Amino acid sequence: MSKRVSVFRREHFNAAHRLFVPQWGDARNEEVFGKCSNPNYHGHNYELEIKVTGQADPVTGYVMDLKVLSEMVREHVLEIFDHKNLNLDTEYFKDLNPTAENIVVVIYEILREKIDAKFDLKIRLYETQRNFVEFPA
Amino acid sequence: MSKRVSVFRREHFNAAHRLFVPQWGDARNEEVFGKCSNPNYHGHNYELEIKVTGQADPVTGYVMDLKVLSEMVREHVLEIFDHKNLNLDTEYFKDLNPTAENIVVVIYEILREKIDAKFDLKIRLYETQRNFVEFPA
Amino acid sequence: MSKRVSVFRREHFNAAHRLFVPQWGDARNEEVFGKCSNPNYHGHNYELEIKVTGQADPVTGYVMDLKVLSEMVREHVLEIFDHKNLNLDTEYFKDLNPTAENIVVVIYEILREKIDAKFDLKIRLYETQRNFVEFPA
Amino acid sequence: MSKRVSVFRREHFNAAHRLFVPQWGDARNEEVFGKCSNPNYHGHNYELEIKVTGQADPVTGYVMDLKVLSEMVREHVLEIFDHKNLNLDTEYFKDLNPTAENIVVVIYEILREKIDAKFDLKIRLYETQRNFVEFPA
Amino acid sequence: MSKRVSVFRREHFNAAHRLFVPQWGDARNEEVFGKCSNPNYHGHNYELEIKVTGQADPVTGYVMDLKVLSEMVREHVLEIFDHKNLNLDTEYFKDLNPTAENIVVVIYEILREKIDAKFDLKIRLYETQRNFVEFPA
Amino acid sequence: MSKRVSVFRREHFNAAHRLFVPQWGDARNEEVFGKCSNPNYHGHNYELEIKVTGQADPVTGYVMDLKVLSEMVREHVLEIFDHKNLNLDTEYFKDLNPTAENIVVVIYEILREKIDAKFDLKIRLYETQRNFVEFPA
Repeated sequence: MSKRVSVFRREHFNAAHRLFVPQWGDARNEEVFGKCSNPNYHGHNYELEIKVTGQADPVTGYVMDLKVLSEMVREHVLEIFDHKNLNLDTEYFKDLNPTAENIVVVIYEILREKIDAKFDLKIRLYETQRNFVEFPA
Repeated sequence: MSKRVSVFRREHFNAAHRLFVPQWGDARNEEVFGKCSNPNYHGHNYELEIKVTGQADPVTGYVMDLKVLSEMVREHVLEIFDHKNLNLDTEYFKDLNPTAENIVVVIYEILREKIDAKFDLKIRLYETQRNFVEFPA
Repeated sequence: MSKRVSVFRREHFNAAHRLFVPQWGDARNEEVFGKCSNPNYHGHNYELEIKVTGQADPVTGYVMDLKVLSEMVREHVLEIFDHKNLNLDTEYFKDLNPTAENIVVVIYEILREKIDAKFDLKIRLYETQRNFVEFPA
Repeated sequence: MSKRVSVFRREHFNAAHRLFVPQWGDARNEEVFGKCSNPNYHGHNYELEIKVTGQADPVTGYVMDLKVLSEMVREHVLEIFDHKNLNLDTEYFKDLNPTAENIVVVIYEILREKIDAKFDLKIRLYETQRNFVEFPA
Repeated sequence: MSKRVSVFRREHFNAAHRLFVPQWGDARNEEVFGKCSNPNYHGHNYELEIKVTGQADPVTGYVMDLKVLSEMVREHVLEIFDHKNLNLDTEYFKDLNPTAENIVVVIYEILREKIDAKFDLKIRLYETQRNFVEFPA
Repeated sequence: MSKRVSVFRREHFNAAHRLFVPQWGDARNEEVFGKCSNPNYHGHNYELEIKVTGQADPVTGYVMDLKVLSEMVREHVLEIFDHKNLNLDTEYFKDLNPTAENIVVVIYEILREKIDAKFDLKIRLYETQRNFVEFPA
């Protein structure tokens, strides 16, 4: 059996953030982002869903060992984002507004470098149960 | 950053309905739809998932402000369907059987007119936790 | 082992209803219950949680076979409420407003008669994911 | 029907916080609370479950209108905590460590003053899907 | 209305399994699969999501009656896998490692033969809430 | 603040089991337990909810550090039950039928010895989303 299968792994992290466009002043940020731009931050339980698509190995039956994927996410994503302030504690959002859209693209780019190029990769990120994003579209 | 990202918003509404093909009599409707055709109606907590795909704005980092999308859904979908009888209280299902398939297409068409054509749109509708539909396929 | 353990079984049913106090006119009902009193009904996916508490049988290890409990609920509750209009299709709510509070008491009384008196019984009813009730308190 | 029934309402808010005992230095706080004491904060999607127990009104069938309860929670709890930094933006946690235990007691005390004394009140607060608290015990 | 819509049905089954490549010895299996290769088996609550895509019938509004789909899954999948040991009690995994990837392909092939070729079919299988797979990719 | 608060922690484990009363033959076991007594076992994703009630410490605001509780559950419960066959791989169910009722009492007794006697303890165990148990009642 050597068919293409998608495998998914869910992880989570808890972080503070503030929607903030650095080149704008506070007033314009509050006008556009409302309470999401609170200067003292708010936060979320982010749920992360990593989808890897490839051939299932004909002997093991694995596309990819999900324990290996989970460990990779822990090391390269959770270590950087979990229990952090996205705006202050990470390099990624010094000059980039930490919207869910921007966070999911950043996480994709981090993992795309680590996961073998023979696999397709897609990331879904839940900011709340009602608001979530996916990349690539 | 100007990559295509999908953003999702979940909303819900509670409605009564009856599966009923108007050109058939009650007997044929009951034969085909069983208890779902109960003449006095039954109902559901419908969960609605709206997926909008487009370029993230390079400054704001938003594909679309989900508060704006939520308000649009409230005004054009929930106002019409929430706490209503789909067969009796809406124009859409006077001559159209309110199956989940037909409801999801109707909601798609309502929102397709309101959402900027530069965005792709897909709708998922949960009738129960175990039965749901998606349009376009 | 003959300790008191609680066992729980979840079931669900889909029904239409209208909050309506028969001795009031439509205007007063709408004033008090708002859109929940829509004359053409609306509906819900009701989730039902039955909690039975008693001694675990020292040989089987069962308080009560949950397949037996599930069948009892199917026969005495779901047959009466599932895919029905609570106001029109059941005897219970001809003169009683089908609020979640009243529905949960009715279901308790139906099951209390069927379940051996040596067991304690408690019922939880979810009208939506955000609104639910429990009886006895 | 005038039996005691419990009614529940779920609400949510998103907030930043940091576990921090003001009379200790940063080193002791980090030793005890680990990454939960990150000086730049982290955050959560808090799920709040309010349980009110009382007699169902024999006419309306309501213990308490859940729309009224929801509005009360919005005004007295969500306005104060949603999209806020619990340590910096609220009076309650200036000198009190914002653990889930302390937050749930604070919310209980806020609502206990607003809800009629004839009702019993219990609050459950989910900090994550795996960590939650309840008061009174 | 004759548009292509996807309809989904969720089912579940409980099974024991052991990750085990028959051509390897126990030592190599344990080295690769760790505790998932426990010789006495472990088990899961598998959640199965069947997605069928096709034209909604212009008269009934159904792509496919989900009660018919549910019955088909019960007869051809659940009867074979539910409350079974996948390695010992089924023909499919005598010589094939019962990874989630291999199970989802087997279930796809069983259902692909039973569902009218005019419909597209996709299967998602949850082994746990955090690990799941989809076929075809 | 020194009020009694309950804190909850959720953990999970995956295990195989078979309902089987050792003093009965296979025929009687199958008659009473049906497919749950399949000689080759089946399995579940067990969800475990540990509730600890006590005074919140006036300085830390903790009833009990949930990381400590989680580690205690991992060491004394998950190490013994996760990815195991409850009947064959554990001492507890050599002569005791591994019903949910019996499992929850065993887990309670394991943890009751490890958790400070000043705390009350209650355990809930989900065998599936629809069947679960709690001890003490």
